[in-house]
Amino acid sequence: MYKHYFLSDPELRDTIPQDYLSHKEKYEEAVRKACILFRKVTQLRDKGGDLEIFRQTLSGMLGSAILKDGNPFTLHYVMFLPTIVGQGTVEQQAEWMGKAWNCDIIGTYAQTELGHGTFIRGLETTAHYDPRTQEFILNSPTLTSYKWWPGGLGQTANYAVVVAQLHTKGVCHGINPFIVQLRDEETHKPLPGIKIGEIGTKLGMNATNNGYLGFENVRIPREHMLMKNAQVLEDGTYVKSPSDKLTYGTMMFVRVIILQDMAGYLSKASTIAIRYSAVRRQSELKPGEPEPQIMDYLTQQYKLFPNLAACFALRFNAIWLWNMYNNVTAELEDGDLDRLPELHALSCCLKAVCTADAAQGVEICRLSCGGHGYMTCSSMPSIYGLVTAACTYEGENTVMLLQTARYLMKAWQQAVGGMAMTPTVAYLKLAVSGNNNPQYWENSTVCIIRAYQQVAAGKIKMCAENMDRRIRGGISPEDAWNMTSIELAQCAEAHARAIIVDKFVESVVELNVSSALKTVLRQLSELYAVYWLLQKSGDFLMYSDVSARDIPSLQNWLEVLLSQIRPNAVGVVDGFDICDEILSSALGSYDGRVYERLFEEVSKSPLNKQSVNVSFQKYLKPFLKASL
Amino acid sequence: MYKHYFLSDPELRDTIPQDYLSHKEKYEEAVRKACILFRKVTQLRDKGGDLEIFRQTLSGMLGSAILKDGNPFTLHYVMFLPTIVGQGTVEQQAEWMGKAWNCDIIGTYAQTELGHGTFIRGLETTAHYDPRTQEFILNSPTLTSYKWWPGGLGQTANYAVVVAQLHTKGVCHGINPFIVQLRDEETHKPLPGIKIGEIGTKLGMNATNNGYLGFENVRIPREHMLMKNAQVLEDGTYVKSPSDKLTYGTMMFVRVIILQDMAGYLSKASTIAIRYSAVRRQSELKPGEPEPQIMDYLTQQYKLFPNLAACFALRFNAIWLWNMYNNVTAELEDGDLDRLPELHALSCCLKAVCTADAAQGVEICRLSCGGHGYMTCSSMPSIYGLVTAACTYEGENTVMLLQTARYLMKAWQQAVGGMAMTPTVAYLKLAVSGNNNPQYWENSTVCIIRAYQQVAAGKIKMCAENMDRRIRGGISPEDAWNMTSIELAQCAEAHARAIIVDKFVESVVELNVSSALKTVLRQLSELYAVYWLLQKSGDFLMYSDVSARDIPSLQNWLEVLLSQIRPNAVGVVDGFDICDEILSSALGSYDGRVYERLFEEVSKSPLNKQSVNVSFQKYLKPFLKASL
Repeated sequence: MYKHYFLSDPELRDTIPQDYLSHKEKYEEAVRKACILFRKVTQLRDKGGDLEIFRQTLSGMLGSAILKDGNPFTLHYVMFLPTIVGQGTVEQQAEWMGKAWNCDIIGTYAQTELGHGTFIRGLETTAHYDPRTQEFILNSPTLTSYKWWPGGLGQTANYAVVVAQLHTKGVCHGINPFIVQLRDEETHKPLPGIKIGEIGTKLGMNATNNGYLGFENVRIPREHMLMKNAQVLEDGTYVKSPSDKLTYGTMMFVRVIILQDMAGYLSKASTIAIRYSAVRRQSELKPGEPEPQIMDYLTQQYKLFPNLAACFALRFNAIWLWNMYNNVTAELEDGDLDRLPELHALSCCLKAVCTADAAQGVEICRLSCGGHGYMTCSSMPSIYGLVTAACTYEGENTVMLLQTARYLMKAWQQAVGGMAMTPTVAYLKLAVSGNNNPQYWENSTVCIIRAYQQVAAGKIKMCAENMDRRIRGGISPEDAWNMTSIELAQCAEAHARAIIVDKFVESVVELNVSSALKTVLRQLSELYAVYWLLQKSGDFLMYSDVSARDIPSLQNWLEVLLSQIRPNAVGVVDGFDICDEILSSALGSYDGRVYERLFEEVSKSPLNKQSVNVSFQKYLKPFLKASL
Repeated sequence: MYKHYFLSDPELRDTIPQDYLSHKEKYEEAVRKACILFRKVTQLRDKGGDLEIFRQTLSGMLGSAILKDGNPFTLHYVMFLPTIVGQGTVEQQAEWMGKAWNCDIIGTYAQTELGHGTFIRGLETTAHYDPRTQEFILNSPTLTSYKWWPGGLGQTANYAVVVAQLHTKGVCHGINPFIVQLRDEETHKPLPGIKIGEIGTKLGMNATNNGYLGFENVRIPREHMLMKNAQVLEDGTYVKSPSDKLTYGTMMFVRVIILQDMAGYLSKASTIAIRYSAVRRQSELKPGEPEPQIMDYLTQQYKLFPNLAACFALRFNAIWLWNMYNNVTAELEDGDLDRLPELHALSCCLKAVCTADAAQGVEICRLSCGGHGYMTCSSMPSIYGLVTAACTYEGENTVMLLQTARYLMKAWQQAVGGMAMTPTVAYLKLAVSGNNNPQYWENSTVCIIRAYQQVAAGKIKMCAENMDRRIRGGISPEDAWNMTSIELAQCAEAHARAIIVDKFVESVVELNVSSALKTVLRQLSELYAVYWLLQKSGDFLMYSDVSARDIPSLQNWLEVLLSQIRPNAVGVVDGFDICDEILSSALGSYDGRVYERLFEEVSKSPLNKQSVNVSFQKYLKPFLKASL
């Protein structure tokens, strides 16, 4: 509904595709467009528009259509504002929210440092309280303590929430958030003691203006520490936070958003690859016949359709996790913390598996377009740049899996101890009682879901046994953990896959749609389940009811599903309803004019504006004529 | 030895890293540097230097150190010159080789079109012979017939070998090569009827100046058809090539070179990731202890060391294939074609598996460096750009695997028929006689190599049976092939893995080095074998002597090997002897000054040269002050 208001604005369109610009020009264009974009957003808001518009422009499809390689304002809205709301006192919110919300100031969130990311306890920036002046003194005591990565920090933001180790009365009280002014509001010059800049070019997100930041005795008023939770009194007395569970909540919220984003990006890549595979014709299936659409090759279907299925798997799981997040948050406000560890464990492993699968899926889609997928005008490279970044940010994936594994090890002990289990690990109970009577296997989702759970349970049990064996052998629990960590990460992945398949199948069953659509969705959910079973067939042969003689029939089921999905594949991606302006791909447009669009795109290259490039006279001609 | 002559030349160094430049500036810099580079190469050659210098500057480490994102002259040396040698008559060689070799002209090789790549029979460019003028008339009859992708074609080359469908006397004789002048030698302006330009920005290789090319009634003399093989006489009579086996040879040669390149690129990525993992410290293994080097985490070793092992696997297999290529080529010249199909099948599947593994390996290495691997100054993104391109060029990987599968299906029939088998498929004989007596499994390379061969044989047999079943069920052989193609591609992959493991282990055994070094290499070869066994454990449980109870002990073997390799990992990558200038990575330099170098790198960003960017006054200030 808002789409047209933005996409039709000529000022928001590129005259030259930004891939042709220099890094500096890309940034300047991004600031220009971001100002126009958020001016329009603010106008809509003031006319009574809802907040969905912010979501769409910041993390949804619309934003990445206009600012294709990142947005220097994102962290202002996504981290700076929410941190003030979540961690500021009522007075602090009154002081800062108006300014930030009206964009009198523009902020960012500076947590990650050159030396520490996911392990936030290791952050080195210091904030020492000086009771004489009632100020904090910020310092970057080492090279590795410099803030590094925050979006918009380079040349854009004039304020930041800075996370630093709080010292008062000679004691370090761990990390706390502070509001720090970085640049003069009138001149934009960095304030004294602020060492600031951007961190240079990256694989992707080159318009986000990621920056670095160092402090040399930068003094800020006591009131700039966000004190909703912990406080420092005037005399320097530290008052502990009564609970830090709500901080926990923000992290999980971001991970739910990441799942949604991954579903969106993979849907873009699938749309491009599937439409292109319907236009592209190549080689011959039978001598003398015309060249078939490449989507008619089974090997091509095998690349495309499991990823099409994954779009729905990610989407349904994002919805499910979002609902669970809201339920648990509501319980939390009533003082009920019971399901928090479960939610945390789920958000960790789903973040890891979904980002890794999405990144791999985008690359499979890109490679399925052959050489043309390598061109930036396909949009595939920039989609990959955005997706693969999510494997690292907001918690590095291996660390995430190991956090879930820690929860699973506890859950296993509870299952062994006969305790009541929360729903998503209830399957462990069956594993405890043993799987001595393998059940009859048939190719059904009921059998498959049980098999996924058997695999997860089998791997969790194996890890628990290996941990136990090592500790009984005299190895310290910490060393035993590290020695078992490859398998621990794998058991968390298996747990995530059991969840994803279960929720995908369940969501399709519960969906209230036409039976024709339901059939297609059911085929996709079955394909997803069978595909990942066969990808991990060793695990299923080890731990589930699947036996070696079932594998060929599962492979056959997979092949049947591919051919069933084939006639509907284009229709399904059309149903994603991603308009051409948002898709922004010469290969994937709705009208299928692939080759015409490729020519239109290359005509935009500045190199093609002149028939002879200046380098001919300057370099090439003297070189070629040297021997004459 | 030549290294210093090039790397110390200040003109060949970047003042600003090229990632910060616009696409047009990148090109102009690439031409400037390429002219200097090849002037120096020519000088060395004229002083009696050997041809290794060309290899080093074109496909080796040295070239990619100076021209980091591709070289617009590469195809002149790698394809234009060799095609004239390989497909020109003696007279044609006399006419063109001097000019090309002295760089009076600069050429490229224009084969791939917008609509056709790997399937070269589908090319659409036409060359009609006109006996009245004794000329060929070149045309691009469709949009999809435009040449698309050739390196240097955009603004650089003034000549090209063009592959076109030859028509004479009303008959099409298939594709043949023609020398075509594209641009005026004095002015560099495109000649009449030549429509030419570059194809724009890509995921990587942005300095190669990939171009497009269309023809509108472009006339060239009859003598410009390269006629060593097929000929067109003055009256238009077509004389067939006596044999086209030598063309075959060039393709295989290029694939051997690709294997070498992949080994080189993966060695770079491994060096960067392993050195960084020795410098980076993070989190805690035990409470209260200092942060460990991240290489001490078993999960990190699991990311790094299998890829370190793969560097050697690729290298030894490249050497082995190179020797086989030379032997078979020698036999060919004696008229012995026996081993040509075997070589062709090997070059196809090894190209596919090695490029795919290298691409995945580079990404695992990049991600193992966390966020810093995402920065271009790590060099990881550009290495990935170069490596993933090889999954598509010189034969798309799935097509390559299916070509090998075709050979394997024939080989299986020969094995079933009791015929003599060439060495690399001799293992099929054992499979024919059946595997009814599974042998005792022990964790040894002998057992593992046999198991890899059992897997390949099992999958080949399964494919043959499925093909047979389908054809007996009334399905045409072509449709049966397509329906079986997922498994066919997989059996070719399994064959390649059996070869790679076998040759790796064998090469290490035969190596004449110190026993200390041999121990490390043996550990790496074992790690490689066990790693891929566990990655594909389902196949091994299905088809080999490995049973479910062996998997935990194989996992344990893997973990032991990782810990054995740990102390030598840095030493091994130091042994690759990739100097800092060639590595060109802030994360991977020999001295380990990671954080200092990151700061040095970002100080080069043009955005950091001014404390306030121009966009503040132009856009940001009006936006921020709008509500006041």
